[in-house]
Amino acid sequence: MTAPVRVPVLVRMHPQDNVAVVANDGGLPAGTRLPGGLVLLEKLPQAHKVALRDLRAGDPVRRYGVTIGHAACDIAAGRWVHERLLTMPEAPGLHGLPMATAQAPEVPPLAGATFQGYRNADGSVGTRNLLAISTTVQCVAGVLDAAVDRIRRELLPRYPQVDGVVALTHAYGCGVAIDAPGAEIPIRTLRHLARNPNFGGEVMLVSLGCEKLQPERLFPPGSIPIAGDLAAHHVRLQDDEGFGAMVARILRQADTHLQRLNARRRETVPASALVVGMQCGGSDALSGVTANPAVGACTDLLLRAGATVLFSETTEVRDAVAQLTARARTPAVAQRIVDEMAWTDAYLARGGVDRSANTTPGNKAGGLANIVEKAMGSVVKSGSRPIDGVLSPGEHLDGRRGLFYAATPASDFICGTLQLAAGMNLHVFTTGRGTPYGLAACPVLKVATRSELARRWHDLMDFDAGRIASGEWSVEAAGQAMFDQLLAVAGGQRTWAERHGLANDLVLFNPAPVT
Amino acid sequence: MTAPVRVPVLVRMHPQDNVAVVANDGGLPAGTRLPGGLVLLEKLPQAHKVALRDLRAGDPVRRYGVTIGHAACDIAAGRWVHERLLTMPEAPGLHGLPMATAQAPEVPPLAGATFQGYRNADGSVGTRNLLAISTTVQCVAGVLDAAVDRIRRELLPRYPQVDGVVALTHAYGCGVAIDAPGAEIPIRTLRHLARNPNFGGEVMLVSLGCEKLQPERLFPPGSIPIAGDLAAHHVRLQDDEGFGAMVARILRQADTHLQRLNARRRETVPASALVVGMQCGGSDALSGVTANPAVGACTDLLLRAGATVLFSETTEVRDAVAQLTARARTPAVAQRIVDEMAWTDAYLARGGVDRSANTTPGNKAGGLANIVEKAMGSVVKSGSRPIDGVLSPGEHLDGRRGLFYAATPASDFICGTLQLAAGMNLHVFTTGRGTPYGLAACPVLKVATRSELARRWHDLMDFDAGRIASGEWSVEAAGQAMFDQLLAVAGGQRTWAERHGLANDLVLFNPAPVT
Repeated sequence: MTAPVRVPVLVRMHPQDNVAVVANDGGLPAGTRLPGGLVLLEKLPQAHKVALRDLRAGDPVRRYGVTIGHAACDIAAGRWVHERLLTMPEAPGLHGLPMATAQAPEVPPLAGATFQGYRNADGSVGTRNLLAISTTVQCVAGVLDAAVDRIRRELLPRYPQVDGVVALTHAYGCGVAIDAPGAEIPIRTLRHLARNPNFGGEVMLVSLGCEKLQPERLFPPGSIPIAGDLAAHHVRLQDDEGFGAMVARILRQADTHLQRLNARRRETVPASALVVGMQCGGSDALSGVTANPAVGACTDLLLRAGATVLFSETTEVRDAVAQLTARARTPAVAQRIVDEMAWTDAYLARGGVDRSANTTPGNKAGGLANIVEKAMGSVVKSGSRPIDGVLSPGEHLDGRRGLFYAATPASDFICGTLQLAAGMNLHVFTTGRGTPYGLAACPVLKVATRSELARRWHDLMDFDAGRIASGEWSVEAAGQAMFDQLLAVAGGQRTWAERHGLANDLVLFNPAPVT
Repeated sequence: MTAPVRVPVLVRMHPQDNVAVVANDGGLPAGTRLPGGLVLLEKLPQAHKVALRDLRAGDPVRRYGVTIGHAACDIAAGRWVHERLLTMPEAPGLHGLPMATAQAPEVPPLAGATFQGYRNADGSVGTRNLLAISTTVQCVAGVLDAAVDRIRRELLPRYPQVDGVVALTHAYGCGVAIDAPGAEIPIRTLRHLARNPNFGGEVMLVSLGCEKLQPERLFPPGSIPIAGDLAAHHVRLQDDEGFGAMVARILRQADTHLQRLNARRRETVPASALVVGMQCGGSDALSGVTANPAVGACTDLLLRAGATVLFSETTEVRDAVAQLTARARTPAVAQRIVDEMAWTDAYLARGGVDRSANTTPGNKAGGLANIVEKAMGSVVKSGSRPIDGVLSPGEHLDGRRGLFYAATPASDFICGTLQLAAGMNLHVFTTGRGTPYGLAACPVLKVATRSELARRWHDLMDFDAGRIASGEWSVEAAGQAMFDQLLAVAGGQRTWAERHGLANDLVLFNPAPVT
């Protein structure tokens, strides 16, 4: 009996790198002769790093052309360079950075790409047609859940053009220090969630009555485009005659919105109407080799088509700050990048931690030695084009277009919630370890970094970027395939998460205390 | 046509008080002659305060025998003393407090009170028979929700002795600084939630795989009593072959637990098996006159019956610290009270606020001038007996009995979650403004401070403490009635929230940063 022939696939990201990553599903055994003649001195799991030359203690370990750490001891060529053999560098400083210095070459616009979308009065375009119900406070969640259950069973069958109903429930609204520094973040997040393009401009609000987050504070006059008075869109539970009356009133209110939503139809719109949020979660060392570079290539195509792209996850791009400030369109944009990172540095320091608190056991098992290596693999999602602007957590695009750094925590559910608040109508989520992530408000294209995961999670993963590691696709070809699939999903093709009804909770970013 | 006769009801809490509260539903008009001859100089809403004598600017304003503030200007007898006429005092210091100085008179034990409960192997007693499914991380929530839906439809009908299934989902587990100071709070909360008496000692866990909160960290060996290895109770989604396989495996795992739960039967147990969490939310000035004093009387009865009572909401008892330290059973208990309050002071200060961030617009509309007045009305829920111990947020009683200060934020959902983690099997929730609050893991007796609310929310409020204001009940009679009703609910009588299936989300207290 002979072992199957296994062609070793090694990925080196930059000519100056002194480590490379094993791309083969299942890893490679000790004794494997690599292309170029190097022999593995020990078994290497997939996505982990091998030393390409002898390293001395203290030598820089380079991947992506960047020092991701220093050798903690002598490491022979052919050995596994795992996290315990690396010391982590300090975070790069925030002074003296290159500000808007990178000269991006002109690229021709990409004309003619379209999808079938729902045009909104504010100029945005929906990829789905959803009734959203905003809430001021967690207190109303139980009643609203009961009402939404009845809306689904009793009302939605009468409105076939409506894709669903989304209760925008959350843990905020009372028992919080609502005037503390940072409290504006969860409040504006909730305000802007209500404006998401997939909700068609219909605003409906359920409040309690006595909560800290009063309706007028959530939606000050003029802050959201609603027809007429807020009171006409608002059910206040403390005004009602008990549970049965509350549910009945929510149903009546929902019905008026559903009638209008049901009259909407998809029409052909240019790809420039897309607002795509890029995120990764459950990353491994192949995230930066397959899925995220494919996303980066797709980002560049989207930008050429005039679309808007959001990239986020501040602790996962912090170590790439110089690359980002250099790519900023203007020095003012570069300064906003620096300001957001400084804010996050201070926020983490106040809690007694730093960016290194980001990495997970799964990242490390997946071959990511530390946050520096993770960041270098994460930031490639932003592609290569100039950065047009910056959004603070919970801010809305307000009609601006281009490539935006939407500063958010890297927590999957918080980042997704904040990108929805920014105006995202389509979400791309890459994963190496695998997560069944989904959002109720927006389709999520889930991208596997490895073909093994894509095969095994056949009914969860929408896109297999592992084909890059197998040589089946170039990064550019994967980016083009992703671009094409995004247009199809935007036009109504359902993702796996949508077919199963999988959605994570909205989770707000509240840097202020609870009381 | 003559106006209906309205007998003015004024509540003065202490002989030294220079204000009193209007108890009448709907308030009292200007010109009303009060018992004793004083005439109202302006219209007073229900639950608001009238000056009983002329006050000069700077005079202390006393309610509950305590200075709740100082007059901001001269206030004539008969005028409405609202929040804008009061300046708030500083928080009492945490040094030089009376430590375990109050000598509580002996009270006879209350023998013979029983209820029908579910005995657990660890000595605790359940009031409901629920399958709980613990989770390590929010990532699994979508899949688990889909599985729970199928458990409800396909499995529960086969297990009629089981009251329901509770997914212990939450926003924690990844994207958090898991080694930061304070991170032990959400982790031990999740650990202890799994031990709630209403879950019958069955532990079932759904994890993702790569998350920060690994199963071994959530449930270290020996930390929870489970039969055999954790692996036998654990579904790890990243091990599975996709969505269909995940759901199928969760259903198989749930089935083994449901079989055991279905074999359980209620039996007669002493009232000493009750662990009752006391909480108020949506308070008004009658909270401290009707509902909370009734709870206090009930607390005293429960303690005489040997039961355990938890009171909480640190910012709502902070101003009563001297009363609490004096009532501590020992100086060590008094010191733990001080330590918890000092911790909360520092936590709030780090976020740029203090205890005054607690009060809500509804509190103020309901007649509560500030946090001092609110605290004096809140702390009466703890009754009059010595305080036997203190639990830090997320700590478990571990078999201890008596009156415990379970230090928690005052946020309704966070306090409820932490009281569940402490081991609560029955919850009392008082409200003046009205909230449809409920918990999936434990029955919640909702107590109205006002009869108007109890009547209007006829299908939400379980107990009308407004009968104290109307003179129908003494505080003691109300406490006795509440005690009797609690035993009935503990034995299976369903609350309104249970009949409607109303439950709020579990919300964890995480004082550490997200990443």
